[in-house]
Amino acid sequence: MRPDSSHTAAAAAWQGRSVLVTGGLGFIGSTLARRLCDLGAEVTVLDSLLPQYGGNRYNINGYEDRLHIDTSDLRDSAALEGLLNGKDIIFNLAGQTSHLDSMHDPETDLAINVIAQLRLLEACRKRAPKVRLVYASTRQLYGKPLVLPVDESHPIDPVDVNGINKLSAEMYHLLYAKVYDLSACVLRLTNTIGPRMRIRDARQTFVGIWIRQLLEGRPIEVWGGEQLRDFNDVEDVVDAMLLAAIDRNLPPVPFNLGSDEVISLVDLAKLMIELHGSGDLVVTPYPEERKKIDIGDYYSCYDRFRSASGWQPSRSLRHSLQSTLAYYGENLCRYA
Amino acid sequence: MRPDSSHTAAAAAWQGRSVLVTGGLGFIGSTLARRLCDLGAEVTVLDSLLPQYGGNRYNINGYEDRLHIDTSDLRDSAALEGLLNGKDIIFNLAGQTSHLDSMHDPETDLAINVIAQLRLLEACRKRAPKVRLVYASTRQLYGKPLVLPVDESHPIDPVDVNGINKLSAEMYHLLYAKVYDLSACVLRLTNTIGPRMRIRDARQTFVGIWIRQLLEGRPIEVWGGEQLRDFNDVEDVVDAMLLAAIDRNLPPVPFNLGSDEVISLVDLAKLMIELHGSGDLVVTPYPEERKKIDIGDYYSCYDRFRSASGWQPSRSLRHSLQSTLAYYGENLCRYA
Repeated sequence: MRPDSSHTAAAAAWQGRSVLVTGGLGFIGSTLARRLCDLGAEVTVLDSLLPQYGGNRYNINGYEDRLHIDTSDLRDSAALEGLLNGKDIIFNLAGQTSHLDSMHDPETDLAINVIAQLRLLEACRKRAPKVRLVYASTRQLYGKPLVLPVDESHPIDPVDVNGINKLSAEMYHLLYAKVYDLSACVLRLTNTIGPRMRIRDARQTFVGIWIRQLLEGRPIEVWGGEQLRDFNDVEDVVDAMLLAAIDRNLPPVPFNLGSDEVISLVDLAKLMIELHGSGDLVVTPYPEERKKIDIGDYYSCYDRFRSASGWQPSRSLRHSLQSTLAYYGENLCRYA
Repeated sequence: MRPDSSHTAAAAAWQGRSVLVTGGLGFIGSTLARRLCDLGAEVTVLDSLLPQYGGNRYNINGYEDRLHIDTSDLRDSAALEGLLNGKDIIFNLAGQTSHLDSMHDPETDLAINVIAQLRLLEACRKRAPKVRLVYASTRQLYGKPLVLPVDESHPIDPVDVNGINKLSAEMYHLLYAKVYDLSACVLRLTNTIGPRMRIRDARQTFVGIWIRQLLEGRPIEVWGGEQLRDFNDVEDVVDAMLLAAIDRNLPPVPFNLGSDEVISLVDLAKLMIELHGSGDLVVTPYPEERKKIDIGDYYSCYDRFRSASGWQPSRSLRHSLQSTLAYYGENLCRYA
């Protein structure tokens, strides 16, 4: 959504719309919820605020009076059915994101990423059959890339329980779209960065913990370092989600997001240090525990979604890192 | 396992082996359990005997004193851990098989076909890390074939909740094999027929209800009729499972079973009537409720498993139908 005219059109599309954002106090969810408020939508955010996940009340700082917050758990189907009343659009972002946690506690990952998703879809089918659903899936389900860039025809071969469960959930969304005429769109996100991401640990993205290390004056700890990755700015991801929500004619297939900027982890760390103006990094071998779920190089082809929706990322990696560093420079105590 | 010599070798391999068969009072599970007893294995069958599934005590008629029966539910992880003690091999056949039930009650399908499977794998990892697992998956996860015959490189696109859940379970098995060095093999079964299949309704296979209709003097009710299918005799499937269990060097990838005999549904019904010596069939349009989860023509390519293991089916469709009709001619009252 680059030119002003499309931005104006987008605002008209959202005025007064009743929207639910699951995981809406998390990193991407809160950024989306804030944008939706600015566009005039009536926004409800659902977030259980469980401490090990990305929810943080400070993420909606300044917007507390402009949206409704519900801290029910997505696994609670009774709460869900009430929440769906009158909703036009659901952005379904709630999830367990840590690959390592999914291996240590696979049943919790299953409960959040699959059982709760199925309950949400069942509730939509029964209580809100006209709703538009946008589901945030992940590049994690491709596993270790066989060819690069990875497009949607790449074989699916998750390297962890999280990838298997996210695949199930997106398949449920697309199945319910086909069988029950629910309207659903699936976006497979790559690494997303920006203000409001979890930086307490690496549960959401390793960049989070790097930001914290840098701002706390500790060396950035890089595992391996030569692995290539692509990154989307969170505002570009929000653009993609808004487009996906508005266009009900998008086919019920998964769409990759992605970026044209690809960078090695060690170069990313160096760029962060350069932008911060100081800092250090230490490269250590990839930890044994994580080796079996490492995917090597990864970057996406997002041509399918660009062709279908016109979306393309417009914020540079440099811009994303600058805005992220600036945000945490001011708000570190709210997140660390 | 065609020649006598390999049969003798197989018997030596099984003598005294401690084996668990989940779903072991069901159609394929009980046929496998009986064969394992004959080969000298120490067999435990786990089967919750829930009435809507395939378990039937009569399936082990004559073998009651030669195996141990446990009617715990696979979803009960406490029961599971005790059962695994000292087991060499687990044939993991327990599952919800009805495509239609999986749409009407998706959460039960998820509980049995995914949650319980994950618990079994976690229990194996903790209590029986040296065990060999053979998981019975299904061709259902391919969805509507794009090319025929369907080999393992065919895209995965389940048309129902059951297909999505079976995919998750097989991915869990293969993931645990790769990450935790559990030894696991996944077989994707096509339509399997033979004595002891469920004939009360079409929950396990439509051929079951056809057998019942024929033997009760009612017309066979064929939906559509032109759809092509392949069928494996249950004894050929048991052969495949025994091979998969013994050869720990098989790669941790899914293997199709399948048959070289492909037949349309209407021709299958006619063949059954011919073999029975009487009967009638009525062709009706495909029911609206099932249309969206119909897959059209399907038959498998089983070259990957043939190359890897030497398996190929040796019982003709005619033989399978004859043995099945003979079995239910004698035992109809135990199953109808």
